[in-house]
Amino acid sequence: MSDRPDTPLLDRVRTPADLKGFSDAELHQVADELRAETISAVSETGGHLGAGLGVVELTVALHAVCDAPRDKIIWDVSHQCYPHKILTGRRDRIRTLRQKDGLSGFTKRSESPYDPFGAAHSSTSISAALGFAVARDLGGACETGHGDAIAVIGDGAMSAGMAYEAMNNAGHLKKRLIVILNDNEMSIAPPVGALSSYLSRLYAEAPFQDLKAAAKGAVSFLPEPFREGAKRAKDLLKGMAVGGTLFEALGFSYLGPIDGHDLDSLLPVLRTVKARATGPILIHVLTKKGKGYRPAEERADRGHATAKFDVVSGTQVKAKSNAPSYTKIFGETLVDLAEADSRICAVTAAMPDGTGLNLMAERFPSRVFDVGIAEQHGVTFAAGLAAGGMRPFCAMYSTFLQRGYDQVVHDVAIQRLPVRFAIDRAGLVGADGATHAGSFDIGYMASLPGVVVMAAADEAELRHMVATAAAHDDGPIAFRYPRGEGVGVEMPEHGTPLEIGRGRVVREGGRVALLSFGTRLAEALTAAEALAARGIEATVADARFAKPLDRDLILRLAREHEALITLEEGAIGGFGSHVAQLLAEEGVFDTGLKFRSMVLPDSFIDQASPSDMYAVAGLNSAEIEAKVLATLGVAQVSRRA
Amino acid sequence: MSDRPDTPLLDRVRTPADLKGFSDAELHQVADELRAETISAVSETGGHLGAGLGVVELTVALHAVCDAPRDKIIWDVSHQCYPHKILTGRRDRIRTLRQKDGLSGFTKRSESPYDPFGAAHSSTSISAALGFAVARDLGGACETGHGDAIAVIGDGAMSAGMAYEAMNNAGHLKKRLIVILNDNEMSIAPPVGALSSYLSRLYAEAPFQDLKAAAKGAVSFLPEPFREGAKRAKDLLKGMAVGGTLFEALGFSYLGPIDGHDLDSLLPVLRTVKARATGPILIHVLTKKGKGYRPAEERADRGHATAKFDVVSGTQVKAKSNAPSYTKIFGETLVDLAEADSRICAVTAAMPDGTGLNLMAERFPSRVFDVGIAEQHGVTFAAGLAAGGMRPFCAMYSTFLQRGYDQVVHDVAIQRLPVRFAIDRAGLVGADGATHAGSFDIGYMASLPGVVVMAAADEAELRHMVATAAAHDDGPIAFRYPRGEGVGVEMPEHGTPLEIGRGRVVREGGRVALLSFGTRLAEALTAAEALAARGIEATVADARFAKPLDRDLILRLAREHEALITLEEGAIGGFGSHVAQLLAEEGVFDTGLKFRSMVLPDSFIDQASPSDMYAVAGLNSAEIEAKVLATLGVAQVSRRA
Repeated sequence: MSDRPDTPLLDRVRTPADLKGFSDAELHQVADELRAETISAVSETGGHLGAGLGVVELTVALHAVCDAPRDKIIWDVSHQCYPHKILTGRRDRIRTLRQKDGLSGFTKRSESPYDPFGAAHSSTSISAALGFAVARDLGGACETGHGDAIAVIGDGAMSAGMAYEAMNNAGHLKKRLIVILNDNEMSIAPPVGALSSYLSRLYAEAPFQDLKAAAKGAVSFLPEPFREGAKRAKDLLKGMAVGGTLFEALGFSYLGPIDGHDLDSLLPVLRTVKARATGPILIHVLTKKGKGYRPAEERADRGHATAKFDVVSGTQVKAKSNAPSYTKIFGETLVDLAEADSRICAVTAAMPDGTGLNLMAERFPSRVFDVGIAEQHGVTFAAGLAAGGMRPFCAMYSTFLQRGYDQVVHDVAIQRLPVRFAIDRAGLVGADGATHAGSFDIGYMASLPGVVVMAAADEAELRHMVATAAAHDDGPIAFRYPRGEGVGVEMPEHGTPLEIGRGRVVREGGRVALLSFGTRLAEALTAAEALAARGIEATVADARFAKPLDRDLILRLAREHEALITLEEGAIGGFGSHVAQLLAEEGVFDTGLKFRSMVLPDSFIDQASPSDMYAVAGLNSAEIEAKVLATLGVAQVSRRA
Repeated sequence: MSDRPDTPLLDRVRTPADLKGFSDAELHQVADELRAETISAVSETGGHLGAGLGVVELTVALHAVCDAPRDKIIWDVSHQCYPHKILTGRRDRIRTLRQKDGLSGFTKRSESPYDPFGAAHSSTSISAALGFAVARDLGGACETGHGDAIAVIGDGAMSAGMAYEAMNNAGHLKKRLIVILNDNEMSIAPPVGALSSYLSRLYAEAPFQDLKAAAKGAVSFLPEPFREGAKRAKDLLKGMAVGGTLFEALGFSYLGPIDGHDLDSLLPVLRTVKARATGPILIHVLTKKGKGYRPAEERADRGHATAKFDVVSGTQVKAKSNAPSYTKIFGETLVDLAEADSRICAVTAAMPDGTGLNLMAERFPSRVFDVGIAEQHGVTFAAGLAAGGMRPFCAMYSTFLQRGYDQVVHDVAIQRLPVRFAIDRAGLVGADGATHAGSFDIGYMASLPGVVVMAAADEAELRHMVATAAAHDDGPIAFRYPRGEGVGVEMPEHGTPLEIGRGRVVREGGRVALLSFGTRLAEALTAAEALAARGIEATVADARFAKPLDRDLILRLAREHEALITLEEGAIGGFGSHVAQLLAEEGVFDTGLKFRSMVLPDSFIDQASPSDMYAVAGLNSAEIEAKVLATLGVAQVSRRA
């Protein structure tokens, strides 16, 4: 996309140990070169740019001062890990980021010893770091040795309850543990929650204080060995909170806030901490997402995620889209329904744009609630809204809804409350890889008594399912839909509620029945065409519902075909399992039925293009066709032969 | 068990409205009578005593001041709801607590309009209350009307991240919302976490302050309308924290601490809050668990849960046990293994006694970690321990592990870390009812790639499975076992690791095969005996593993029998689904097999005795026998006929 930047000092860095030979002045230059290299790499691959640019100096400072991989540097979420990857022996592959067989867009244990703990979901780093710290003190044998455990966590991630639980536990255990709060004033969405305003207040007030007195007051909270260093370093500190901050209340020593783009601040503070810390300490660092690259700094989301782009102009190279995204269809349809039903409201966990709820937030700002990275609370909050007479849509990605699973069971399903779950990113997701795949929701939702579970075969179906959910007052209902664009079908202007528990036959055939739940319908139709060319007529049906099942349809398909094959973009234990249970109970297997259930394979699938991932998963039309032939016992001869 | 107490004033209370006619002095007497009635009732039914006794005065004060059911009083966990039930029209049934067809031991929406939101798991109340508050302000229609939303939450429950998420969101939304922190200095386990010591400090320091100055300082944090009332009420306040408390940092006004057993403190404070509160407010109330009943106060757990007992002596009437509990076997076996392997450590989420880890905590105190009510952190902390070279056992109840599900997927399974999940209370649990049933773990664990999933058929098997887990270094492994006593088999002194993925045949038969996963093995054997008396010979096998399956065993059973029936104490999507998938893929159904999968029914089962619950679930020997007969097409004639 553009010429590679000139990086004479960075070129000498093979591992972080190579940073030890540089002067502080040279480290400044390394940081500049690292920023240029990060921009250059992401311009070629696309990916998460803003987060990495925000921690360039912090990454250099950490690796210059620490001793990785002996020291465990754990990047929370790890969107921000590209500069870290460049410094830790992966620069030669950095332009394979998020590609099939390339580097993961996240930290990953299997990729490098410098990634002691993988991440992708938010707010796990303090728990993991505490685990390393305790293992170290218990004498656990770690291949890379045991040094310091260091969690780097953003202010958005700190809003999750899990981070609070970990801080609370760490404060209690009193182990030496370093938490760096990377306060970039904006996680994925604009700051939400009272914590953000607390943090703003914390440093907004600092400049007005007498810094000398403030430092004097603040050092009394630091462990004794720190006090001398803190006094000397006080001109480095923009401010100190006097009194019990949130973090001190939880048992941490607090140091900061510190300018996270100023190596002359970061290096001495980190050196002091490394030399003298005893118990848990929190270093509060202020950074700017997208720092140093104007096109990123100027975007509202500070270049959170980007396609490939031109480095000079920042213009992104995006593939032309043929159909609206499922996310957009959900958002538009919900606005449409909310116009007519004032009970409809919506809950998102820090994903208003990602879930399409931004559309509703524009139209009905008082009826959309961004609870922060807080799925547990978000689900039960929705349950409370429902009990109070509202009809909430709880819009979360499949993989993140796992965070609120107990709340779905305990607060929604057992109480049969009319919460509507809009499960986005269900199935395989492409470049984000295994951690973001929505593989398990069919199973974990459909096993719950009284929950209606739907999956959309295309974007028009999604529109109808949103309407179906809106019309369903009798308990919980969920609908799942994939990442990305629809298949391009004609769109109805409004959604029409579907009959609960009724599927539809899309293609009539004779010998074999393909029963699809959700996204694989188009592939099933393609497979049916190919089979017809071989003289094998296939019926193709869209189940629409995993719960309740369309018993009549399924039993009829079983009765009238030699073989019945279910299709779903989900793990074992979901739709196919429910169908098998029905067939078994009805005695259909007693007399024989060629039944197969095609599900996601029993493995976590690494990042790749969606079509590559479906091939790995065995869920493309070719694999469906092959499955039919194998099931019928028809020898498979290449159609091209 | 004992004479009913004399309760002349309480006898006049049919609904909380009846309290409005009493003077404050009379309310004191109502509280005394309510305490006596609570003790009397629980002496007959057993149940959670200490928590209710700790909130007798708070319950009276709330119902005297508030206007339920218009005001939504939401009891967190709701162990403490018995006095509330007595005051809200359920006194006539209070002696049916936790019995089949009786009152639930928890709050329950379907039971009473005075229970606006059911609970049983911890830390949901603030989220739910916020939902009600927002629904009210959005004009949601609620059958009982909309008044104040009031969450009553213990200090232990406040340690969960979910509570923090909710506080954070509430502080941001600034709705009128009342949270009462019931600080009883001890939740189920002794206080854990830095939060507890923070709270202790908060009120330990208060008496030394000049109360006048403290109140003056504190009222500046209150909304304007409060200040006058707070000044007048300052002799009611034992102390005020000056400066930013944790709660104020999250956006709440803070009032307290207040003596929760002193109605003369509680009533004016609640009246002031009801009259004048605007935004979110936290009232910090100090109580003593078991208050007012010496046998409960003197027990280490303050009478947390009790069997039926004699009111005068406090002596509990416990059924004689025939076999050790599964929990104890797990705890003992783990200690045994930890003697030999210094890498073994253990994590519990506020349940050291309930999980049996108290035994290991006595022997190896530095290797057992009680993280508080914090399953999300607990699982990832265990993952960090494993990455750091330790071999953690993560011991949680099945229903509570749901809280850490995403962490199981994202931090343990994807990274293939050797965390061992000890899943207690798997299956039906009796008196605690649907909220505590461990119904879903087989499905949600076995769908994860690379996770080994076992279930113990008896207490000796559990011992072997603990040893199997300890010997399994190659990724995650889980074993589930039920609540209560073992079946009384002879116990091996030490556990012996089982071969991964190998089941065992327990009884050889000919016509039908019963393949049990876990606890239903004994019932299957009983059913087999009954079938033998009818001339139907049944093979009975113990699968031991849901993942990986014993393919050879299963295919042999299918080949050699007319029918194959799987049994498990879990919901659809688990063991039976995995077996069905295998049989389908192997083409076994193509030519016919009478296959059935007996799972928990598709409903939430209310509290009852375990054997009653199994009958409802259709998983007793009689139901197994009937299933075999129906499957074989043999007419079922009563054996007694």
